[in-house]
Amino acid sequence: MLDHSFYMDLILKEAWKNQLLTYPNPAVGALILDSKGAILSIGAHKKAGEPHAEVLAIKEAYKKITKDELIEELSSSELHEYLRKNHNNIFEGMSIYSTLEPCAHVGKTPSCASLISSLKFKRAIFGSFDKSCIAKGGGEILKEGGVESLKIESKGCEELLEPFIKWNQGSFVLYKLAQRLNGSIDGGYISSQDSLEYVHNIRDKVDLLVIGGDTVRVDRPTLDARLVGGRAPDVMIYSSRDDFDRDIPLFGVKNRDVFISNNRDDIKRYRFVMLEGGEGVFSSFCDLIDWNLFFISPNIKGGKSINIDINLCNIW
Amino acid sequence: MLDHSFYMDLILKEAWKNQLLTYPNPAVGALILDSKGAILSIGAHKKAGEPHAEVLAIKEAYKKITKDELIEELSSSELHEYLRKNHNNIFEGMSIYSTLEPCAHVGKTPSCASLISSLKFKRAIFGSFDKSCIAKGGGEILKEGGVESLKIESKGCEELLEPFIKWNQGSFVLYKLAQRLNGSIDGGYISSQDSLEYVHNIRDKVDLLVIGGDTVRVDRPTLDARLVGGRAPDVMIYSSRDDFDRDIPLFGVKNRDVFISNNRDDIKRYRFVMLEGGEGVFSSFCDLIDWNLFFISPNIKGGKSINIDINLCNIW
Repeated sequence: MLDHSFYMDLILKEAWKNQLLTYPNPAVGALILDSKGAILSIGAHKKAGEPHAEVLAIKEAYKKITKDELIEELSSSELHEYLRKNHNNIFEGMSIYSTLEPCAHVGKTPSCASLISSLKFKRAIFGSFDKSCIAKGGGEILKEGGVESLKIESKGCEELLEPFIKWNQGSFVLYKLAQRLNGSIDGGYISSQDSLEYVHNIRDKVDLLVIGGDTVRVDRPTLDARLVGGRAPDVMIYSSRDDFDRDIPLFGVKNRDVFISNNRDDIKRYRFVMLEGGEGVFSSFCDLIDWNLFFISPNIKGGKSINIDINLCNIW
Repeated sequence: MLDHSFYMDLILKEAWKNQLLTYPNPAVGALILDSKGAILSIGAHKKAGEPHAEVLAIKEAYKKITKDELIEELSSSELHEYLRKNHNNIFEGMSIYSTLEPCAHVGKTPSCASLISSLKFKRAIFGSFDKSCIAKGGGEILKEGGVESLKIESKGCEELLEPFIKWNQGSFVLYKLAQRLNGSIDGGYISSQDSLEYVHNIRDKVDLLVIGGDTVRVDRPTLDARLVGGRAPDVMIYSSRDDFDRDIPLFGVKNRDVFISNNRDDIKRYRFVMLEGGEGVFSSFCDLIDWNLFFISPNIKGGKSINIDINLCNIW
């Protein structure tokens, strides 16, 4: 039972909590197993600019073993050097699991792969290859550094990586809908606080948010990321008419661009796009959608359901 | 991060895979952590008459340490004695986690609590008390046997136990529905093979299955458990008319009772009841339902949705 895939499932679960929120980085999870087989720590990359999953897991394991709380004070870029200087060989014989091949990317900090080999880990096990131009090749660095490097088969790790791959290929389009159990989408409040916050977190990251004209006319939404203190994304109102009341909050948010267009190809200029809307938006864009994100509220209430023959779209 | 609740979550996940299938026993998960903190094994109770979760986890850990494959040949009732005779103190210093207080029930075998103390475990951590008449008191047996016994707060363990508690109080009623993402329930095939097998597994266990008259007239279902080689449950057709074609397969299955009734109180005579049906059955029985099990197929297809104001029922 406790094979590689057991540990991989644990970190996949952790990584998924930040799926889409690490843009433009991939969502990644990592785990440290000590030489006796005990799980010391689990880490997941949370946000671009913050430490990678491997570094977070290493930091937690370091704290657990050394009780050295000074490491909490360090910035992301200081962590690598601090660990290199102070590791005192505590990681010898240990294994590190990661959903993605540890990066070879040398930027503000040295790469995760070189950190892992400096810390004298025995093994690194990962579930997908990093094929991005700037970060690939970590497995080679590990081997050269004397770390056993093992890529295992993991469908879960490949799925986790999909948005990152699409971002690197040019664009990833997410359709988001909140509905009740019976499919109804009108008639008032649907989403839980948790799902609202997750959506606001995504809004804080996307390059473009697309909304239908009727939603703007009827609901007069603000479409910002206030619940998480995030930035309001640029908005495309998908409409052939420009009859919008410019006094609604949507148009009043600073540092955001709002434009009206009925040309769906306009979204292709953006790398990370979220569509928020009902049947009209879904039908118009369905062949461009990469992933569907449905929040399903566990209640039933009369009302109109979104009702499209999904077979018309080649996306499911 | 790796506190008691981390390990409890792991075994809750495992236990839920057999939720409702252990009837009349509770679904239980267990885990063995060795003295160095490594997870040796995870077990979940699968079926009444088969070993308890704790015994399955202990057996796996024993095999892992001793490489003694002979234990695989033993029946559920032989396992306890074999482990007592051959443990050779390998479990000293180890911890066992269980979603439920290890049982004090002496039947064909001694209790799990006494097995754990005989094997000299250091600690037993559990997330809910066993309050059933025949099995309660395991925590006391552990303490008397020198095992540290710790009950932690766990909402998850309490939830897991709900059907068991209801069975012991007299009855547990499950409503089951398969629907598409947009709530549609007509228009052909909906369920995946996995969900069909799970439903057949439940049918194999329930004391009564309730179905609406129209479903019998239109769909002419067999309502057996053929996908899992299980027994066909007794069936109540909820209908005020008896105009059913006695030649349909439903009536042809041996060793099952099929009766027609429009008295909903008839279900109260049964300890484990599953309702399979649409709006009619749901509306008629909603205040008697304990749990709702919705299988949601990730596709959208035009059709009729179940459409009830759930606020009319005090069950969500």
